[in-house]
Amino acid sequence: MRLVSFLHSDGPRLGVRLGDVLVDLHAVNPRLPRDMASFLAGGEDALAAVAAALRTAPAESQMRFSAVRLLPPVPHPGKIICVGLNYVDHAVEIDPRNLPDYPTFFGRLASTLVAHNEPLLRPSVSTKLDFEGEVAVVIGKSGRMIDPGKALGHVGGYALFNEGSVRDYQFRTSQWFLGKNFDATGAFGPELCTPDELPPGAKGLFLATRVNGRVMQEATTSEMLFGVATLIASLSEAMTLHPGDVIVTGTPSGVGFAQKPPYYLKPGDVCEIELEGYGVLRNPVTDAPVPF
Amino acid sequence: MRLVSFLHSDGPRLGVRLGDVLVDLHAVNPRLPRDMASFLAGGEDALAAVAAALRTAPAESQMRFSAVRLLPPVPHPGKIICVGLNYVDHAVEIDPRNLPDYPTFFGRLASTLVAHNEPLLRPSVSTKLDFEGEVAVVIGKSGRMIDPGKALGHVGGYALFNEGSVRDYQFRTSQWFLGKNFDATGAFGPELCTPDELPPGAKGLFLATRVNGRVMQEATTSEMLFGVATLIASLSEAMTLHPGDVIVTGTPSGVGFAQKPPYYLKPGDVCEIELEGYGVLRNPVTDAPVPF
Repeated sequence: MRLVSFLHSDGPRLGVRLGDVLVDLHAVNPRLPRDMASFLAGGEDALAAVAAALRTAPAESQMRFSAVRLLPPVPHPGKIICVGLNYVDHAVEIDPRNLPDYPTFFGRLASTLVAHNEPLLRPSVSTKLDFEGEVAVVIGKSGRMIDPGKALGHVGGYALFNEGSVRDYQFRTSQWFLGKNFDATGAFGPELCTPDELPPGAKGLFLATRVNGRVMQEATTSEMLFGVATLIASLSEAMTLHPGDVIVTGTPSGVGFAQKPPYYLKPGDVCEIELEGYGVLRNPVTDAPVPF
Repeated sequence: MRLVSFLHSDGPRLGVRLGDVLVDLHAVNPRLPRDMASFLAGGEDALAAVAAALRTAPAESQMRFSAVRLLPPVPHPGKIICVGLNYVDHAVEIDPRNLPDYPTFFGRLASTLVAHNEPLLRPSVSTKLDFEGEVAVVIGKSGRMIDPGKALGHVGGYALFNEGSVRDYQFRTSQWFLGKNFDATGAFGPELCTPDELPPGAKGLFLATRVNGRVMQEATTSEMLFGVATLIASLSEAMTLHPGDVIVTGTPSGVGFAQKPPYYLKPGDVCEIELEGYGVLRNPVTDAPVPF
C-alpha cells in the first residue's frame, strides 16, 4: 500500500495512492488517523481499516495524485537518524583508509525536510549544496533493544530521501551536523510504501540518483555495509524507536563533491532518485530566499 | 523571572517560581500560554501579561515548588543543538593537537531529556555514562542569518544542562551522535531564567559540576571559546531558530573519562551542576529498567 501525507485546506491529511489517483482517507472515514505516525502506531488494525475504507471510497474522496500538495510522508518525525559511509564505494571515496566496522549515525532536524516536487534550497552562504540519494526506513512499531532477527517487524514502510549536504559546512569541524541541517535541504517522499511491496529490508533493489537526467549514483541496496535490520537493532541499543521515526540508510558513491570535476547543485537543477519497485523522488533546486 | 514547566493532572503547564513558591499561571489566567515555546513566542507582551497575573495571583494558584513534578523547561524542543570543545581546557583534554577555530555542533534528541530531580538512566549496554555540566540557551525570538551584534536579543532565557554521554558509543565512529542520544541521559532545568537576571550572554559566571559532592568541573563561562552570540549567529547561517529551540553551550574540563583514574556514573550517584546567579540542577543516577 502507498500511504501519502498531503496538505488539505484544513490541515495535513492521510491518503492512499492508487496509481494516478489519491484517496483522501479522512473523506472516506473521518475516524481514521490524520497523521502518519498515529496511523503507523495502529499497526495491522489500521491497515485493515484502510483496506476496508478503500472498498467503499466514494467518488468525492478521490482526486488526481498530481494535483495534491504533498507533504513529507512523516511531516514532523520524532527522530531522523542518518547513516554515513554505509555503501562500500562511497566509504572509500570519502576516506580510502577506513572502512567502518560499526554504523556511523548522525542526526537531522525536521526543519530540513521538503516534500516531493518541492525545491531544495541552496543557501546564501554556500555554493556547495550536494545531493545524496538514499532509502529511508520509517518505523512502524515501538521498541528498545530490538533483536536483529525481529528488527524488520518494526518497519512501517520505506520511502526515498535526498540527504542534501552543504559540504563546506559539513567538513568545517569533525561533526557533520551543521552541513547536514540547513533548512529545506532534505527531500523525503513521495510516499510511504508498506514493507509487503518490497523485498525484506528493501534489499537487492537498484538505486540511482540523476541530476538533470545525468546518472550520478548507481548501486543496489545489497551493497549496504549495514542492512536495515542491523541499523534498527544498533540504534535501539541507545534509544526507543517509535512509529514515525525515520532512519536514512546511507548513500552510494557518486555524490557531487567526489565527481571529477566536483558537481554542486545550482538553481534550475532537478534531482531525481529512483528505487526499483518503489518509484521516483524528484526535486528542483532553487536559491533560498533572502531571510527576513 | 523564573519560568517553570511542570506536570499538572491535566497535562503540562507553565508556572513562575518565586523562591520556594510556584505560581500556576493557568490557575491565575487560563488564557496565558500553557507551554514554554508558545510563551516565549509572545515576547515582551507575554512577559508583561505574566507580571500582571502575578500581582493578582490568588492563594489557590500557589504551591510549594518542591512538591511540583517538574518537566524540562522546554519539554519537547524543536531543536536541541550541542556544542563540543567549547572550553579551552576541555578541548585540550580531548585532543591537545587541535584547538577549534569554529564551533563544533551536534544534535541531541528530545527523547534524551529528563527534568531536575529525575534520574539519569545508565543504559544496560554500557558502564561508561559520563556527565557534562553546561549552560543551555533557549531561543525566544525567531531568526535566520542573525547578526552577532543582535544575537543576544534572540535569547529567551538560560538554564542548566547535564549533557550525559555514553563514551564507548560516542567514540565508536567519527560522529558522536549515538553516545549523546541514549534515552534519558540529558538533564535540563530546573527552570528558565530570563536574560535580565544574568550578565549579557551569561558571561563571567562560575560553573561547577559535582558528583556526590565532589567537585569534578570548575570554570567560568568566560572561558567559552565561542560565546552565546557567536553560537546563535553561526547556527542561524544554516537554520531558522525558533522560540523554544535549545543551544547547549559546551562543557569545561574535568569530565569523568578524562579524570585520572576515569570516573563513570553509577547507580546511586548524584550529579549537581551549579551556575552562579542561577542555581543548581540536580539528578540522581539509576540503572535503566530492563526493556519490554
